[in-house]
Amino acid sequence: MLHLPKDLILASASPRRIQLLRQVGLEFRAISASIQEEYNGRKPVEFAVDMAVEKASSVAASLEQAIVLAADTIVVLGDKILGKPSDAKEAKEMLHSLSNRLHEVITGYCIYDRPSNNVIKNYELTKVWFRELENEEIESYVNSGSPLDKAGAYGIQDDFGAVFVSRIEGCYYNVVGLPLAKVYNDLKHCIANNVM
Amino acid sequence: MLHLPKDLILASASPRRIQLLRQVGLEFRAISASIQEEYNGRKPVEFAVDMAVEKASSVAASLEQAIVLAADTIVVLGDKILGKPSDAKEAKEMLHSLSNRLHEVITGYCIYDRPSNNVIKNYELTKVWFRELENEEIESYVNSGSPLDKAGAYGIQDDFGAVFVSRIEGCYYNVVGLPLAKVYNDLKHCIANNVM
Repeated sequence: MLHLPKDLILASASPRRIQLLRQVGLEFRAISASIQEEYNGRKPVEFAVDMAVEKASSVAASLEQAIVLAADTIVVLGDKILGKPSDAKEAKEMLHSLSNRLHEVITGYCIYDRPSNNVIKNYELTKVWFRELENEEIESYVNSGSPLDKAGAYGIQDDFGAVFVSRIEGCYYNVVGLPLAKVYNDLKHCIANNVM
Repeated sequence: MLHLPKDLILASASPRRIQLLRQVGLEFRAISASIQEEYNGRKPVEFAVDMAVEKASSVAASLEQAIVLAADTIVVLGDKILGKPSDAKEAKEMLHSLSNRLHEVITGYCIYDRPSNNVIKNYELTKVWFRELENEEIESYVNSGSPLDKAGAYGIQDDFGAVFVSRIEGCYYNVVGLPLAKVYNDLKHCIANNVM
């Protein structure tokens, strides 16, 4: 796959993002980035990209030579941004609100080069349709615990998640947490043009 | 998840289909079905469904009590059906023909009940867009061996496959080999209506 000119750092402790980046054969180290997420009325795309830049720069600050990749995934339903649910009750509410509707999944990402401080910001948007969910299905899924650490209270790669989604338009991996094709192409472009 | 009234048999030895069906928490046994695949000028959907029915009935014939699930996935480019490539050369040709174009992935499936011989036939269609592929990427991917046992010479779940696909419209799992949401709903419907 790609041969990067320096170490790649994934600014994330998310097991899903780590697995996705491994899937495309890239070698990297993962360093957790903890930031405060506050919407402050920003538009969804702007918010997701800002969060990714904050994560990338917070990790890049401590590195002399590296390419840092960070991402932030949000679920947008109408004009509401759904983050991770705070408890099982909120997870059930989120799933009820997604039932039989279309929502959007946006991942903002940032590639931050050290020491040049060159920055690439980008995002991917996927439309996701849920079929009508039954109470029992929502209960069983939330009781499994899986929805609690996921934006919008579901994972398309989960048991129930896989059968809740009737259709998507866009990149599948974006819904899991990292738009592999777009990130890969941006990295390839950076190397070809000596941006890093 | 679903509680089936009798044993579920997957009429397939495909490791991808076995993994997908496991993902949604269903218990089943896999029995390989070997049939001859000949297009004979049939339309793609008709062909995929016919193949699924053939696989299901060939396995069901030897069972007294069971629900048999079979599926057949094909890749359709323009008016051509792409099956599994016969060798590395054909795999490279297929990938070149898919580059920078839209194609369709169709999975026909069949749920065959024993002893009632009730049959449900259905299919799912997903549109898949490939970005422009570089010669080097095609070479590396085919040399990995993975394209050789896959219809259309790629797996969207592979390392290279994941970064070749820029966008899909429809069900992701259908592209991997089994449309989980639709199959699950059909099984649920069968149980609720005592079709099995």
